[in-house]
Amino acid sequence: MAISSLLLKSYFPLICTKPSLNNKNNTHSNSSILHISLRTNPPHRATTRLSNTHRLSWQNELKNAFQQPPSNQNLIENYSIDQIDKIDDESFQKLVDKKCVDNVRMLIVDAVQNAKAGHPGMAMGMAEVGYYLYRHAMRYNPRNPKWFNRDRFVLSAGHGCLLQYVCLHLAGFESVQIEDLKNLCKLGSRTPGHPENTVTDGIEVTTGPLGQGVANAVGLALAEAHLAARFNKPDCELVDHRVYCIMGDGCAMEGISHEAASLAGHWKLNKLTLIYDDNCNTIDGPTSLTFSEDISARFRALGWNAITVDNIHDNMGSIEDALLSALNETRKPTFIRVKTLIGRLSKKEGTFKSHHGTFGEDDLEEMKRKLKWENQEPFHVIPMVYREMQIQSDQGQKLEREWFSKLDYYKSKYPHQEAAEFEVLLNGGLPSNWESCLPKWSMSDSVDATRGYSEKCLTELAKVLPGLIGGSADLASSNKVYLHDYQDFSVPHSPSGRNIRFGVREHAMAGISNGIALHGSGLIPFAATFLTFSDYMKNSIRLSALSHAGVLYIMTHDSIGLGEDGPTHQPVEQLAGLRAVPRLLVFRPADGNETAGAYKVAIRNREVPSVIALSRQKVAANLEGTSANEVERGGYIVSDNSGRNMPEIILIGTGTELCLCEGSAKMLREEGRKVRVVSLVCWRLFDRQPVEYKEQVFPQGVAKRIGVEAGSPLGWREYVGGEGLVIGVEEFGASGAYLDTFKKFGFTEENVTNVAKSLLEK
Amino acid sequence: MAISSLLLKSYFPLICTKPSLNNKNNTHSNSSILHISLRTNPPHRATTRLSNTHRLSWQNELKNAFQQPPSNQNLIENYSIDQIDKIDDESFQKLVDKKCVDNVRMLIVDAVQNAKAGHPGMAMGMAEVGYYLYRHAMRYNPRNPKWFNRDRFVLSAGHGCLLQYVCLHLAGFESVQIEDLKNLCKLGSRTPGHPENTVTDGIEVTTGPLGQGVANAVGLALAEAHLAARFNKPDCELVDHRVYCIMGDGCAMEGISHEAASLAGHWKLNKLTLIYDDNCNTIDGPTSLTFSEDISARFRALGWNAITVDNIHDNMGSIEDALLSALNETRKPTFIRVKTLIGRLSKKEGTFKSHHGTFGEDDLEEMKRKLKWENQEPFHVIPMVYREMQIQSDQGQKLEREWFSKLDYYKSKYPHQEAAEFEVLLNGGLPSNWESCLPKWSMSDSVDATRGYSEKCLTELAKVLPGLIGGSADLASSNKVYLHDYQDFSVPHSPSGRNIRFGVREHAMAGISNGIALHGSGLIPFAATFLTFSDYMKNSIRLSALSHAGVLYIMTHDSIGLGEDGPTHQPVEQLAGLRAVPRLLVFRPADGNETAGAYKVAIRNREVPSVIALSRQKVAANLEGTSANEVERGGYIVSDNSGRNMPEIILIGTGTELCLCEGSAKMLREEGRKVRVVSLVCWRLFDRQPVEYKEQVFPQGVAKRIGVEAGSPLGWREYVGGEGLVIGVEEFGASGAYLDTFKKFGFTEENVTNVAKSLLEK
Repeated sequence: MAISSLLLKSYFPLICTKPSLNNKNNTHSNSSILHISLRTNPPHRATTRLSNTHRLSWQNELKNAFQQPPSNQNLIENYSIDQIDKIDDESFQKLVDKKCVDNVRMLIVDAVQNAKAGHPGMAMGMAEVGYYLYRHAMRYNPRNPKWFNRDRFVLSAGHGCLLQYVCLHLAGFESVQIEDLKNLCKLGSRTPGHPENTVTDGIEVTTGPLGQGVANAVGLALAEAHLAARFNKPDCELVDHRVYCIMGDGCAMEGISHEAASLAGHWKLNKLTLIYDDNCNTIDGPTSLTFSEDISARFRALGWNAITVDNIHDNMGSIEDALLSALNETRKPTFIRVKTLIGRLSKKEGTFKSHHGTFGEDDLEEMKRKLKWENQEPFHVIPMVYREMQIQSDQGQKLEREWFSKLDYYKSKYPHQEAAEFEVLLNGGLPSNWESCLPKWSMSDSVDATRGYSEKCLTELAKVLPGLIGGSADLASSNKVYLHDYQDFSVPHSPSGRNIRFGVREHAMAGISNGIALHGSGLIPFAATFLTFSDYMKNSIRLSALSHAGVLYIMTHDSIGLGEDGPTHQPVEQLAGLRAVPRLLVFRPADGNETAGAYKVAIRNREVPSVIALSRQKVAANLEGTSANEVERGGYIVSDNSGRNMPEIILIGTGTELCLCEGSAKMLREEGRKVRVVSLVCWRLFDRQPVEYKEQVFPQGVAKRIGVEAGSPLGWREYVGGEGLVIGVEEFGASGAYLDTFKKFGFTEENVTNVAKSLLEK
Repeated sequence: MAISSLLLKSYFPLICTKPSLNNKNNTHSNSSILHISLRTNPPHRATTRLSNTHRLSWQNELKNAFQQPPSNQNLIENYSIDQIDKIDDESFQKLVDKKCVDNVRMLIVDAVQNAKAGHPGMAMGMAEVGYYLYRHAMRYNPRNPKWFNRDRFVLSAGHGCLLQYVCLHLAGFESVQIEDLKNLCKLGSRTPGHPENTVTDGIEVTTGPLGQGVANAVGLALAEAHLAARFNKPDCELVDHRVYCIMGDGCAMEGISHEAASLAGHWKLNKLTLIYDDNCNTIDGPTSLTFSEDISARFRALGWNAITVDNIHDNMGSIEDALLSALNETRKPTFIRVKTLIGRLSKKEGTFKSHHGTFGEDDLEEMKRKLKWENQEPFHVIPMVYREMQIQSDQGQKLEREWFSKLDYYKSKYPHQEAAEFEVLLNGGLPSNWESCLPKWSMSDSVDATRGYSEKCLTELAKVLPGLIGGSADLASSNKVYLHDYQDFSVPHSPSGRNIRFGVREHAMAGISNGIALHGSGLIPFAATFLTFSDYMKNSIRLSALSHAGVLYIMTHDSIGLGEDGPTHQPVEQLAGLRAVPRLLVFRPADGNETAGAYKVAIRNREVPSVIALSRQKVAANLEGTSANEVERGGYIVSDNSGRNMPEIILIGTGTELCLCEGSAKMLREEGRKVRVVSLVCWRLFDRQPVEYKEQVFPQGVAKRIGVEAGSPLGWREYVGGEGLVIGVEEFGASGAYLDTFKKFGFTEENVTNVAKSLLEK
């Protein structure tokens, strides 16, 4: 058993039995009125301070910590050893905090020296902030990292992950033991080079690509605001947590953070606190090389409360004041600009040279000397530090217990609609038999574009899936994703609304959707735009896949078939690019039933993101052979007149081009040919089928195959085989009426038929 | 011959012989002091006003225009017909301007009604601004749309292209005839649904995807500032033009525009004027749904001069005042917020309903009635309007002649370094024999990462290519793209510097690079980041390819081989996604010589963008069989011990994995196997080779082939054939030391050898 959990066991009774409630704002002792106290009292003040009993214990440890080596016996910071016993509690707490931060810094240094890798600069510069958040500000329970009502923390400057790993370790998270700190950046470790929520409990989202975390944090705060509006009652606040996000200069420069910040201001997400590590350095040098914004003025212009903390290294209390201001802000998110020294403590302090990499021996010695750490082994933790952090985590555990009592109260008082729905959400958002809501189409139904079928699916899904929430990047009417039976998410008017208006901000839309998905509250976010503009949010889509965020990406206008808007709006390579993203499910349904099937599989896979590519133009027919149920196999036989398993030729289509294949097959069959048509609606799902099934669909003996898809042919060879042909798009599209454009690129029944004949006659 | 050019011929003598220089700032009549006058006089004031002769002619036309139908004889705007002859010149000009704008609006309406497609709303709302720019502000010569020193205009809100098409037509650009306006959005027309520089002369860049144009404009302004600093002399300003960009609400929301605006402010690009069409509407409804920024305050926070124009529809002079402020600003770019009514004139005026689509018959009638246009045929142009616009274009022609005189003077006075270099640039930037500068490597040279080889190539290229300019998104040292012999581009310190510090702004970096490439001045921009973060700029890369912008994308850390930073930083699907982009050349060189070869082909193709993917980790060897010259074939045989053209197996590699193939081949050959190794350094170039060559490299008879690439296997089937195997990466990478990560995913000589053996034994 590692040190931290041992300590939790040994010291727990000592600390928690009689917390001295010397903080005037703390009223948590009475759980029956907790729902009121949580609203009216700043939670980050609601931390237990030292009791007399353990102050004594702390004092001795503090003295011990400073008494090595003996030459330094006479002073602890500015106090003599004797004075320590007499200073007031507040000053004493400052001393303790200071020492804890020292320990945080040394662990960061030790981890980097040991791994010979990693990014110490930001972690050391923000040690005070990280420590303060985990020790004094945030509500969490390390024993249940997924507790619903915890505060969420996002490290958008993901390269500073060591700061978070160290804080998680000191706070008692099982996921980060000293051994894990020693394994930093090692293959298979729980402490990878950037934080990954799927690897380390206590990490909420996967960050590293800069700016993404800011959008994730906005999504987390949106989820909180939305759920609070839907479920909280005057007598019971079930949903009430804050979101803290640390961003660096890089995040501040990335467009996605700006888009997200603009939306957070617009949405008045007052429980969001964004802490900007203004350390004046990026990888290439001082920020003055590339950055001369008045960033606080910018955030104010976006509708934020903006505060500057100038002297964090000398006065940790300054961050407390800023966080209090954030707490008291009821209509705006808060931006706290904290001026720090990157690599604080090292000789490289204040310069970009401390951004990443190890420290020289002399530097290390000097750091240890400064902190009176000379005699300590690497990865030393003063026991007091664990126990100090435990005060906060114990408090979190207490809050969690109280929250579950509250949930019981809620269930008894509001058993029907609200509690039932809330439980569905807590259990992942999928009520039993939800799939049965999906509409079905028959051949005689009037035809529509697949975006039209999608609209009908969404309308039905919204009724049965309480967590379905999302919107479009200013193309709601074109994407057909507006949930007409529901309001807009809008603060303060209708935060319970389930339509999110993202504006023309694709990248933030996807990053925010990741945050909503990873809020872990059964919300099922969808995000819509034209397929071409998936380009604007590619990295966020990738992160959905990497971080198990089951976002539904609804991408309409999915080919050159969009027509007049021309090549800037016509996707060509996007399907190929998205299919190459690991784990991502890319669907291109051919008609209504396949669209319903795509939704079924996409929604069922709550830890996998999906792209559903949909047409602008109407399909030619509701096909007889398509099937919602077959979509989960990724590819299947739609029609075949060969009788046995040996057609002369196989036409393989996706999306609107499947109808072309069917039409062409009809023409060929009329000429006596044995033709099979296959829908390849989701390549990845088909690739996962057993060899036998694949052989059944694409028998090795049938070498004449044609792939028909109005997109890049890249990847099609896998299915058409060495002798097959692909009718695809290898150039950019062209502005023109849809049928003209389709014709120009060979997407007509006649051309498919001619190509098939040429192949048959080979 | 179309109307506009006819008119140019007929009226040219009348208008240009004796321009009345009643504008006190206009001193262009003396070309010998032009270089001074251009600096000291606001060029947009430097337009000729009406001479007495043609005022008379205009008056009659104006009267005629208003006399139909007869019932409206008595009033021209607020003047009676008789008053017209007596009003002062300024008031008369206003009347003329007003009528011209009416005509612009009616052409927009006619084109949309005729095409039953297009976006009239923004075009109609910004008619005054568009007209004012083309008639009074901008310097251009329709007879030479590529004149070097022209002002550049970028319509970032590309859906408003009709405004630009109409202005180009009226100004006399051959590229947009009335017939072209009638062919709006038709396949093959010169008036596609969004502006394309490769289709329509007079369009500088391809826009449509929102926000891109803002970055392009920053690139164009950077090019101007850079070249001006390098070539202008106190007695001869060879480079001196402005950049105007119109953006809409969508552009204002996109992150890329923010990134670009932040850089423009940082770079103090005072010749850049960004005009924001603040029409309070996006596709989904009022901007208030999603946008509550104080946008002027935001731009001020970014270091811009910010001005608001409130009453453009009632007072066109307000835009003149704003543009004057921009002209007088010497240290900041200018942001002009113009409050407009979208769809101005229509019944849908002021609402999102006018954003796109046609107008009802009653609406059309009402519009015509308002403008006294009842009796006009569709696409009617008052002859006066052509001639009015011609005043500006004639002025541009004169400025062009003067500029060429100036160029002659420059050549005679500064014949050596400066003029010679400037001429190289004007001729495309490639001096003869530039390729010979590229370094060569032999097997005995010490090995490096391909990013290291790239650095050596760039160092040499910078010496011989005067236009080579670029930088990194805050990874200069990691990407190894810093040109150590040159300064940073920095205003006012060193605008002649050739290293651009983009900060962590990948998307703007690419959009700005497109602007630099399309400045048409022989500049060869390079843009660098990690390959994974190509995701952040995907749409701009696509636009490079679509708009023939020969940007060099230098993408290092090109696989899971980057190691410790983990899966967020390790590319997997990026190569596949980029290979699917039409036209784009994607190189993944294996060693020094292939890196040099990649640069050679990439730089030679000045109208095609290239991605050069480079490793973080060192290659295993400088290979004997690689060749800089063979890179242009995309794929070639590196080694073969089969003697004849019939190896037992072919190992195909790219990048650092080619060495693995060579190592494995050695092991197999030692066991008596006949093994060929093929480098597939650029798939697209290989695909373009003649069938015979492809057959030579990959003989049909050799079915046993293995593709080895540390990336998504998507697309490899094309080369390994139906029976071949691919050693690729189908999952996300992992944080760990490079060799551990490579081993985990099967990238060792041993594994390649084992896979080869299993295939050989099949």
